[in-house]
Amino acid sequence: MGFPTINFDRLKQDLQSLSEIGRETDHGLFRMAFTPGDMAARAWLETRIRESGLEVYIDGAANIHARLGWDGERPSVMTGSHLDTVPGAGHLDGALGVLAGLECLRCIKEQNLPLRLPLESVAFTDEEGRFGGMFGSRALCGQLTPGGIAQARDLRGVRLIDAMAEQGLDAMDALQAQRNRDSISAFVELHIEQGPVLDRQRLRIGVVDAIAGLFKWQARLIGEANHAGTTPMSMRRDAFQGLAELAGALPRILAENGSPRSVATIGRGGLVPAVANVVPGRADFTLDVRDTDPIMLGQLADAFRRALSAIARRRELMFEFDVVSELAPVKCDIGIVDNISELCGAMGVAATRMHSGAAHDTQILATITRAGMIFVPSKEGRSHSPAEWTAWDDIETGTNVLLNTLCRLAGEVA
Amino acid sequence: MGFPTINFDRLKQDLQSLSEIGRETDHGLFRMAFTPGDMAARAWLETRIRESGLEVYIDGAANIHARLGWDGERPSVMTGSHLDTVPGAGHLDGALGVLAGLECLRCIKEQNLPLRLPLESVAFTDEEGRFGGMFGSRALCGQLTPGGIAQARDLRGVRLIDAMAEQGLDAMDALQAQRNRDSISAFVELHIEQGPVLDRQRLRIGVVDAIAGLFKWQARLIGEANHAGTTPMSMRRDAFQGLAELAGALPRILAENGSPRSVATIGRGGLVPAVANVVPGRADFTLDVRDTDPIMLGQLADAFRRALSAIARRRELMFEFDVVSELAPVKCDIGIVDNISELCGAMGVAATRMHSGAAHDTQILATITRAGMIFVPSKEGRSHSPAEWTAWDDIETGTNVLLNTLCRLAGEVA
Repeated sequence: MGFPTINFDRLKQDLQSLSEIGRETDHGLFRMAFTPGDMAARAWLETRIRESGLEVYIDGAANIHARLGWDGERPSVMTGSHLDTVPGAGHLDGALGVLAGLECLRCIKEQNLPLRLPLESVAFTDEEGRFGGMFGSRALCGQLTPGGIAQARDLRGVRLIDAMAEQGLDAMDALQAQRNRDSISAFVELHIEQGPVLDRQRLRIGVVDAIAGLFKWQARLIGEANHAGTTPMSMRRDAFQGLAELAGALPRILAENGSPRSVATIGRGGLVPAVANVVPGRADFTLDVRDTDPIMLGQLADAFRRALSAIARRRELMFEFDVVSELAPVKCDIGIVDNISELCGAMGVAATRMHSGAAHDTQILATITRAGMIFVPSKEGRSHSPAEWTAWDDIETGTNVLLNTLCRLAGEVA
Repeated sequence: MGFPTINFDRLKQDLQSLSEIGRETDHGLFRMAFTPGDMAARAWLETRIRESGLEVYIDGAANIHARLGWDGERPSVMTGSHLDTVPGAGHLDGALGVLAGLECLRCIKEQNLPLRLPLESVAFTDEEGRFGGMFGSRALCGQLTPGGIAQARDLRGVRLIDAMAEQGLDAMDALQAQRNRDSISAFVELHIEQGPVLDRQRLRIGVVDAIAGLFKWQARLIGEANHAGTTPMSMRRDAFQGLAELAGALPRILAENGSPRSVATIGRGGLVPAVANVVPGRADFTLDVRDTDPIMLGQLADAFRRALSAIARRRELMFEFDVVSELAPVKCDIGIVDNISELCGAMGVAATRMHSGAAHDTQILATITRAGMIFVPSKEGRSHSPAEWTAWDDIETGTNVLLNTLCRLAGEVA
């Protein structure tokens, strides 16, 4: 028997329609959570779901569910992603997963594919983090608290409660969005890779087997600012030299303490006083370290602490750091991973197993159900930018893999 | 025969009086050239010179000369420094050399020391560089041009011509300040070290044998900004990693291509986009390299160019730089250096030969006459700061060494 396929023209048209909502000329899309762009996208999606003859359900966290066969008794196979964007976004991050999910449900309904379980395609609220990130999926997984909701604010200080009230929504209702574990059988998200791996290797599909965790430090090395002409090299306590030594040690620290999946980035670095003829007395910097293995992450944190302490001691610098964030890595369900890999093989699609270095709603869903992700290539790894691009061909392939994955997970014994 | 000595109490009182002119509460001194603080200091100095019975001469560049025995025929032995300051300055940088020079002339006059040559103590205009630096000494040495004067502006865009006109001065008169080489027999400047060497080694006097030259680059490494989570280490073109590699190579480059006097500083470094979870796509930085040997400086410039090119090539970065400034090193007159060293030995003062890593008016004067400098210790090397400090004892010793140096240079055959 062949594999069911999606109506690609319809999906393409949906993606193009959605990409006009929240568009700012030349600056990409702006659909941060509960802004006019986000609200317009929600309204448009609701209409599209209804037009498809699917059921619309909006939960207390404003997550929009398209449902097929839902009866409140059997657990659903869930897919989805998010409609909200970062500022200056491209047209695929989040949107692809939402619209591909909708297209899959439409096809299953139209083609009368016989499934054992109901299906849900969800657009999760505020994945990108205007108010902290993953609001919708965290609500669904019972990770919110009344205090957390009350305190959530955006960068301008606007409270989540007020932003939702302005749209006629009660933020505290998000506490009611929690789903029983038994109500979800599995979760699968289709997403663009947002990295260069598939594009470089000319592969069509990444079967995600884990999502990286991370720790992020805001750190500083403090020495002494001195005249660059009158201070001999041997009498300097140059904070930037300390930072440069750490940067130079990154590859060694990763090789000795991490895995091939480990990455470490010094993304921000500022010198004080930042004058050409003054030896820097202070260097402020961030350190972002990721891996899919929690034990590796712990080892890496230890190793970076030791390396920085040794550098500071030897160079007579002071070293301090604050942990800005910590996120545990998540493993995808091995059954789902194997299923998707097998499917790709059977469909003749070039695929590889890989991890996700970026965070996704899947990471939250994995805490309450079996979860997996399907990646399609990002042209040159570009993302969070209007230059974000995935070949239409790859979008079609990815959505077909999603469709068949959902069929397997919701169908009779495969 | 003993050594003549200065009236220390009088010098101390002068230093304290001058340190109240241009004082900004808690922020040190502000006497940038032709600001009210500078003008008040000039007026005060003129009065002090007249009160001492010395002749006052103000040249076209607004340099204030105190003269003793000047007859327009015999060449003078000249000393001096500057009254103007950087913003937030201490009380000694420049001021010490001007007031110590005045004190020396007063003593020679009072004590009727029999000298063969006239003496001049000069307060040079705008050494610190509100309008580019060394304006007074460059005028005196014939290094100014009408075009240069017309174009000179401060950081706020105020023209030198207007700033001087406001004080009733014609900037173009500076072209008339040029001195005939034959009119100066020698120049010696007393200055604080502005570095930590004498203080660390517990020496009283530095006999300066050379003033470092320098080159300063504004440079950039350009790679590609990428997601810190989704971009494997091997697929990054991290501009900061390139800069860190250069910083790490500084000691090797200096050791292989420079002298023990070579110093190199990366004082400013900025990353773009400067976001914790984005691999830096661009690093802008300054490189300031100094040595007293012009050949060494040339070798160092070559070596840094080669090192940066190799780093950029290997890391697939683009590398560009602009030469922001270049200053040739200057040798002090060996006869004057030997004279001061000998004097310190005879006076029982612990001294060492050393170079100056900072620029001084002496550097300009050396282009037209025999020149030398005397350094006194800077507490912990601090300078260009209200925390600038030299023990009164060291100030007394330094001024006595200056007095006896001037006597030797202006006296009968030593």
